[in-house]
Amino acid sequence: MKDWSETTLRVRYAETDQMGVVYYANFFVWFELGRVELFRQLGFSYKEMEQDDDSYIVVADARCIYRRPARYDDVIRIRTRVAGLRSRSIRFDYEVVNDETGELLATGETGHVVCDRNARPKVLATKYRRLLTSHAAVPAGAHR
Amino acid sequence: MKDWSETTLRVRYAETDQMGVVYYANFFVWFELGRVELFRQLGFSYKEMEQDDDSYIVVADARCIYRRPARYDDVIRIRTRVAGLRSRSIRFDYEVVNDETGELLATGETGHVVCDRNARPKVLATKYRRLLTSHAAVPAGAHR
Amino acid sequence: MKDWSETTLRVRYAETDQMGVVYYANFFVWFELGRVELFRQLGFSYKEMEQDDDSYIVVADARCIYRRPARYDDVIRIRTRVAGLRSRSIRFDYEVVNDETGELLATGETGHVVCDRNARPKVLATKYRRLLTSHAAVPAGAHR
Amino acid sequence: MKDWSETTLRVRYAETDQMGVVYYANFFVWFELGRVELFRQLGFSYKEMEQDDDSYIVVADARCIYRRPARYDDVIRIRTRVAGLRSRSIRFDYEVVNDETGELLATGETGHVVCDRNARPKVLATKYRRLLTSHAAVPAGAHR
Repeated sequence: MKDWSETTLRVRYAETDQMGVVYYANFFVWFELGRVELFRQLGFSYKEMEQDDDSYIVVADARCIYRRPARYDDVIRIRTRVAGLRSRSIRFDYEVVNDETGELLATGETGHVVCDRNARPKVLATKYRRLLTSHAAVPAGAHR
Repeated sequence: MKDWSETTLRVRYAETDQMGVVYYANFFVWFELGRVELFRQLGFSYKEMEQDDDSYIVVADARCIYRRPARYDDVIRIRTRVAGLRSRSIRFDYEVVNDETGELLATGETGHVVCDRNARPKVLATKYRRLLTSHAAVPAGAHR
Repeated sequence: MKDWSETTLRVRYAETDQMGVVYYANFFVWFELGRVELFRQLGFSYKEMEQDDDSYIVVADARCIYRRPARYDDVIRIRTRVAGLRSRSIRFDYEVVNDETGELLATGETGHVVCDRNARPKVLATKYRRLLTSHAAVPAGAHR
Repeated sequence: MKDWSETTLRVRYAETDQMGVVYYANFFVWFELGRVELFRQLGFSYKEMEQDDDSYIVVADARCIYRRPARYDDVIRIRTRVAGLRSRSIRFDYEVVNDETGELLATGETGHVVCDRNARPKVLATKYRRLLTSHAAVPAGAHR
């Protein structure tokens, strides 16, 4: 699967600010929803990954480029894909699209380190690695 | 000490919504700041209470009455006092005031149960009980 | 329609706190989603109400009683109904349910005043009033 | 003034997540506080900039690199400086430091376009430009 994983959400009033658009930090919350749904579509839940395998996907860096505003009550499509995968780290790419108009609102990326509950880096379990590799946009082992 | 504990904060852009005022749920975040500062002013930190005494102040109910809006960049004064104290529970009253104009923006109250990390109710440790009793607006043992 | 309006959401990582459960203020964000979906199910959008009729549903008071925690990745069902309706004000009741187990996690209520963009109270337009009356759990004109 | 502008805040419970650390999107909220305080220390308020000069500092891109976690109740120092200034755009650099230990927790940057209330780019008013130039880490007109 090289395609993007997709999920939609509706913009909450709480997510807007007095400029009348979605506050910029909330796009990173949406990226999180994108990651989680990508995992679910690959067949596992991030919740289980934390609980059963003591594996946390700790954020190491995050970036967003804003093109057009998102507004209250808009339906937003979050597109997510694996951009890179190594033994202890993983990168995701994101696109934020207005689902009605198809306009691209933002793009982003996040980098993560796999850690145990005590924040020590660890190797990503093989079962996750295999599923994520099947989804990766680039060969496993290669970071952009 | 029967007085209110006070702390101030400045309204963040992130806390506003497209109506141009602070989103209503954020007043409950401010109540939390009020509780924490009351504890600090009594001589202990809620952080230590969780870490050292395995005592969590779990919210059982919360209420806010909104009188006037809070706006971006306003300096807000949160006034907090203990409204009731029992062996396993505690209540707080709050007032939210515009610090510049003195206008009362909102009043509120929250009720809490003391729990351990597994969410089992437990008796509040004597040291905290003693400090909070000294601050209580009403006799310990009595809930409004 | 006397039934509850219902909508579901999945708990976001951003909504949890270090106690491992959903932070209490977020239930009020969920109440907002409940109100908006009730409106949509009645045939109008709150967005249009603001834009086209200069009618804002300003929160006057809010209350939540917490029974059981909501946790990351849980699917939550928000049940909302009109609890009271007057010419210039409206009340809602809420139930927050774990959609998988059926457990009631919280109940709540909010009171609102209809205002124009300058925060002056105004009469709710007849078209909205009619739709909301059809949905009200109690006779229009009566507040609990 | 080539120095960093600085402001401190205390981590809120609401800002933590179930990993026991500050949720990553909240660092961008803190960056906003840093920008606002930089403006205030230069002698103007962002609030007035919006209200009196119809000038909004719209976020065009944002980035954060996370080094160490921020935790509940930590006092955090946000250091902000102007990294670049053009007629219609401005960039900021940020450092997030644990105020007690001095540890660098994160670095970041944001780019902004000056817009009017209708989101049309406009030239930054001279009075702001002059004050910001005096503060810029790099010559005005030059973006990194």
